[in-house]
This record gives sequence, structure tokens and C-alpha cells, in this order.
Amino acid sequence: MLDLVLSSTEQGVLTLTFNRPDRLNAWTDAMGRRYFDLLAEAEKDPEVRVIVVTGAGRGFCAGADFQTLNAIQDGSYESEPDPRPTTFPTTIRKPLIAAVNGACAGLGLVHALVCDLVFTAAEAKWTTAFARRGLIAEYGLSWILPRLAGQAKAMDLLLSGRTFTGAEAVELGLASRSVPGERLLEEALAYARELAAYSSPASMAVIKRQVWGDWERGLEAAESAATRLMVESFARPDFAEGVASFVERRPPNFPPL
Amino acid sequence: MLDLVLSSTEQGVLTLTFNRPDRLNAWTDAMGRRYFDLLAEAEKDPEVRVIVVTGAGRGFCAGADFQTLNAIQDGSYESEPDPRPTTFPTTIRKPLIAAVNGACAGLGLVHALVCDLVFTAAEAKWTTAFARRGLIAEYGLSWILPRLAGQAKAMDLLLSGRTFTGAEAVELGLASRSVPGERLLEEALAYARELAAYSSPASMAVIKRQVWGDWERGLEAAESAATRLMVESFARPDFAEGVASFVERRPPNFPPL
Amino acid sequence: MLDLVLSSTEQGVLTLTFNRPDRLNAWTDAMGRRYFDLLAEAEKDPEVRVIVVTGAGRGFCAGADFQTLNAIQDGSYESEPDPRPTTFPTTIRKPLIAAVNGACAGLGLVHALVCDLVFTAAEAKWTTAFARRGLIAEYGLSWILPRLAGQAKAMDLLLSGRTFTGAEAVELGLASRSVPGERLLEEALAYARELAAYSSPASMAVIKRQVWGDWERGLEAAESAATRLMVESFARPDFAEGVASFVERRPPNFPPL
Repeated sequence: MLDLVLSSTEQGVLTLTFNRPDRLNAWTDAMGRRYFDLLAEAEKDPEVRVIVVTGAGRGFCAGADFQTLNAIQDGSYESEPDPRPTTFPTTIRKPLIAAVNGACAGLGLVHALVCDLVFTAAEAKWTTAFARRGLIAEYGLSWILPRLAGQAKAMDLLLSGRTFTGAEAVELGLASRSVPGERLLEEALAYARELAAYSSPASMAVIKRQVWGDWERGLEAAESAATRLMVESFARPDFAEGVASFVERRPPNFPPL
Repeated sequence: MLDLVLSSTEQGVLTLTFNRPDRLNAWTDAMGRRYFDLLAEAEKDPEVRVIVVTGAGRGFCAGADFQTLNAIQDGSYESEPDPRPTTFPTTIRKPLIAAVNGACAGLGLVHALVCDLVFTAAEAKWTTAFARRGLIAEYGLSWILPRLAGQAKAMDLLLSGRTFTGAEAVELGLASRSVPGERLLEEALAYARELAAYSSPASMAVIKRQVWGDWERGLEAAESAATRLMVESFARPDFAEGVASFVERRPPNFPPL
Repeated sequence: MLDLVLSSTEQGVLTLTFNRPDRLNAWTDAMGRRYFDLLAEAEKDPEVRVIVVTGAGRGFCAGADFQTLNAIQDGSYESEPDPRPTTFPTTIRKPLIAAVNGACAGLGLVHALVCDLVFTAAEAKWTTAFARRGLIAEYGLSWILPRLAGQAKAMDLLLSGRTFTGAEAVELGLASRSVPGERLLEEALAYARELAAYSSPASMAVIKRQVWGDWERGLEAAESAATRLMVESFARPDFAEGVASFVERRPPNFPPL
């Protein structure tokens, strides 16, 4: 079970790789459980500052595994559901970057978009797919997609289930950067290493929570919360180091989270 | 009164046409009531899967009729207000696509943007107009516009009341696609027919409600609701047909809503 | 203290200029207090219809003053905090346009984005900066930025603290228009003068509040509120003048707020 998701850390960046390449990394409960376990471990590991998730082979994740879907249909599906919701990655206190190397469909697309940032191969094929399978906007996608792409573009992608490319995903606001597939991982890792080297882990943890959470409150409440968080940040060594490194024109040396 | 809005159905797509072309289809209570009646009928009609709304002649809808505005001003206006709010189209359980063929101003722009998707003639003239008439952001426009275009671009369009083209409406995120006017209806209908042929009516009904509704809840609540809706979808024939048609590489044959 | 922010009014447009050019207009409590005082005066001044804020010299505002940051760090900082929150400009009943002429960093970027609209020099350097100083998304920025740029792009700018240009700020949705620096103020003033000449001050006051406020309610609540505000607008002279000037094809002559 352990090799369902590959894992390696270098220069503060943990790379996780969905590893069912013969099935375009289609989602199974076991693969999902392993992925979430690795995220939970990474949160505690002081060597990990930033996480990149990608797929082995030609796909990122082609959606729910077909055997699972068939089992659901014929009533033979027996799941021991993971108590962690699909949005679990948004609660991890380290930045999570999806590197969408290929097919990104249905549940796979949901898992790309609950990452904090997305890099994509320009030629990767994306689709929500749900409406064409008689399904619905699963696992919070109808919440996330309009906040990335705007209401109308989200509606287009969800109602039609049409296929679009990574290049279009960037135009639509779903992904941050589109690059030729052969350079994708390299660019995502370079960005991740820059976060690991120059951004305070404590700052990133707070900011990530602020951005996901401030959709649910008003501007005044967000500002009050930010003031409290700012005062807390003044007391951390990260602030002293952030100012000192800036004044001394040198890279910062922030402590791990 | 009945020909204030024309109506015809073909291949699962109902086309409604505002039909006061000598007034650029300016909005009257009577035209609005007829439009909403036709939407309510369409929701119940099993032959209708998708709805397209457009305007006869050179305009889509140039805003509130001037006789109405004058009557409001001199106090002679007697309305029997339609109890259905301007946002009524968002509650219809079938996708509604605006095909903005020309002038789209004030209340006309509101009615375009409470559709789920918008196609526009590239050269169509759009404007919010309200601030230049001493009016305000009517009927939820100050809610919708920032969710389509972002806060700053919405503020520009609402404060200035400036005119912009259909091509700019797409750049701003208000419309999905801009095409030369002579091809507009054809492209909107082609898109609508694809929804009617390939997307499950039950899925589209649920997804439409999810997208409009999930602005009002948090991510976790949206995800919980989606899980419940997904389990419901497993029990519908649409799911079986969606999977079967995919596996058999044939068009799906979904039941009507 | 009074020349910390310069002030001049012409053709209904008040221009405020941060005036600590030797420090790239870095923010001090005193400068902030003076800025907010001038905004509060402008709200009451019938000659002022629109406000433009810019910076003297090469910067807009390079963030919190370093002496302040150092004093916070060594515990010697004594502030008499201004009771008005950083979001105070969003409560001013007149449109506020930032003209970002140069460096726009940290707290300076926050102050640009709590304006209603932003014009920027194409070559101006922007950065959130916070994560690189061990700080957090200050003063509501984690609320505002995703509503301007979308969730993913906001996350990129906040987590990385990377520098970007004014031209990119427009692509990202943070600013409305990017122009060569030497034409910036001229274009921002031209836009402001058009608002002052053609848009009703009462309408702009209501619309501004609607747009900022409607993020915090649902579509139905926003529509109900708009209906009430519309009925109020019918009773104002602005509505009569707005319709009359349109019918007579002449510029409107709206009363001051």
C-alpha cells in the first residue's frame, strides 16, 4: 500500500506522487488514505516547508476509480470511509502546490483545486466530468471553482463537463502557471524551493488559513482577526529575522514551523 | 400580451425572445411577467432541457421602459408588482443561457447576469447606466457583478456607468463567449444543444443550485452538502446511464428532469 | 504635520498626495492620521465628488516605516493608535481612486486595495512582502485580495511575497488600468472628473456601500436591500435630473452629496 503515493524531500520541499500510472492515478480509498497520511506526517516534519503533489506517468488523477464507481452502482461497494474530508489539504499548515502533469478529471480536479496553488502542463486535459456521468459538483467544487474562475466560468465548466487544456485552466484562473509538460515539475519545484527559502513557515501557515477562512467572514471581522494575528507575529523570531535579513540584504534563515 | 416574448423549442432547447424590437426590448412589467411565466412553464416541460433567452431586432434589452420611468417620476405609475423577484431565473431548475445580441443596459444587464451563462455579440453595447440616471445598483447587481468580474472591475462598471462592448464583457468575466453578432444565436444554441444531449438534467439542476447557493456558506458546509447530494445522485438512473454510456463510448440517454 | 499629505481640489476631484518622498512615502501613524482626517473632511465637503490618492516622488507607499518596525521589535514603540481601522476608506461615501505611481509594498499595497478603484503605472513595483518579513496578511488583505484576483492568484502573491509590476497587477485584477508612469495621474484624474461630471454623487455613495457590503450577504438579501434603496432613489432629485438629462441629451447637473 505504501507505494500508492511516492514521497521524497529535498531542500525543504516534499514531493508526493500519485502512483497508479496504469490507471492514470485514478482515485481509490487506499490511495487517498495514503496521500492524507503523508500530508499529516509532512505537517509535523520540520524538514518539510512546502509540499508539491503530482502524478506518475501520463496523468495527474483521472477521477474516481472505475471499479469503485461500478461497485457503488451494483451495491457491492464496501468502504470504511476516511473521516478526513476532501478539503483536508486546506487544513494542512504548509503550502501545497499541485503540479498537474496530465489528465485531471472529476475527483482528480477537486484534489488539484483544494491545493493552495496549481501549476499545470499546458497540454494537460482537464474536465469536471460530473454532469456527463449523472453526478453533481462533488466535494466542495461548487464552492471553490467560482472563487477561482468567477461565477459564469464555473457554471460553464460544471454544467457542460467539457474538456479544456492546462493553458485554458490558467486563463480561467484555476491554475497559476502553465508550462510545457517536460518543464512542469522543474518549475513547480523551483517555485516551491523559493517559498521554502524566502518565506517564513509561520507566516505561510497563518496566511494560508487566513485566505481559506476569510471567505466566511466580513471585511471588518477579517481585519480584526488580522490585527490580532499581526501582534502575535511581532513576538515570533521570524519577524526579527525577516527585518534583519532585509536590512542586511541577505537570505533569511527562518526557523521551521 | 402573449407575443411580448416569443417561444420555440427544438432538440431540447427552448428559445425565448424578448419581442418589443421597436423599443430595443425595453423592460415592462407585462413583458417581465410573460418571461417569468414562460420560464416557470419550461421548468415543468419534459421536452425542455436548456433555455436560451435573446432579443428580437437590434437590442437584447435596453433597460426599464422609459414610460415606466416617467410614470414613476410623475407619480402616475400603478404597478401590480410581480411577486417573483428579479433573481427568479436563478431558481429555475434548468440552465438558462443569455444570448446578448445588442444593447444590454440597466435592468437589461441585470437580466442577462441572472442567467447562468452569457454569450454576447462582440459589438453589443453594454452598460450598467444606473449611476448616470441617479439610480443605484438594482436588483442584486452589486452582489452578482463582483462575483463575475471581481471587486474592482465591478466598481468601475457600477460607479461610472460607462459603455463597454461584448468583447470587453468577456474579458471582464461577465460573459463566457463573444462572437460576431451574425453567429451569436447559432453558437449559443449549439452550446445549449450540447448540454441537452450530453449533460444529465438532474445533474444540471443540482449543480446550478449548488453554484448559486454556495456563495452563502463556508467550504466545509458546502462539502457536507455535496456529499449528501452525491449519495442521492448514486440512486438516480442518470448515474447508471452516465457510467454506461462512458464505458460504451456512446452518447448518453438521460431521462428528463 | 500638515504637509505629510498634500491636498488640492479641482473640478470636483480632490487629489491627496502622500508626501514623504525621501522614504518612498513609507507609512507612519502621523501620515496615516492626516490621510484619514483629509478623507473625513472630503466626505463633508460639497465641492468634492471623487478622491484620488497618489504618492510624491518615486513611490506610492513602500509599506510601514522602518523606524516603526524597529521600534516594535525593540519594544520602544509607543503608539496612540488611530481608532479608525485600515478599512476606513471603504466607509467614505465618495469614490476613492488610488493612482499607484511607484513602489507599492506591504501596508502600502493594503492602502491601495482598500480604495474603490486602482490605476497604476505599468512599471510600478508591487509586493505584499509580509511572508518574507515573518509577518501575516495584514489588515484585511486576505479578505480583499481573493475578491480582486481570485483565490489561487491571491495565494501566490501572499505566500511568495514576490514582486510584480503594475501591468501584471491589472492582469491579476488588482488594478483597473495600467498606463505609462508619466501619464498615470492625468488618466486617473480624467476618469475621476468623468465620475464627478456624469455620475450622481448620491448614486455613487449608495453603490459603493452596496459593493463592499454585498459580499457579506446572500443574493436574495442583496436584492431585497437593493429594492428598498431603489425606491429611496426615486424620491431624490438625482433621479429626475438623470432621466431629464438623458432625454435632453445634455450633461447632468447632479446636486452634491
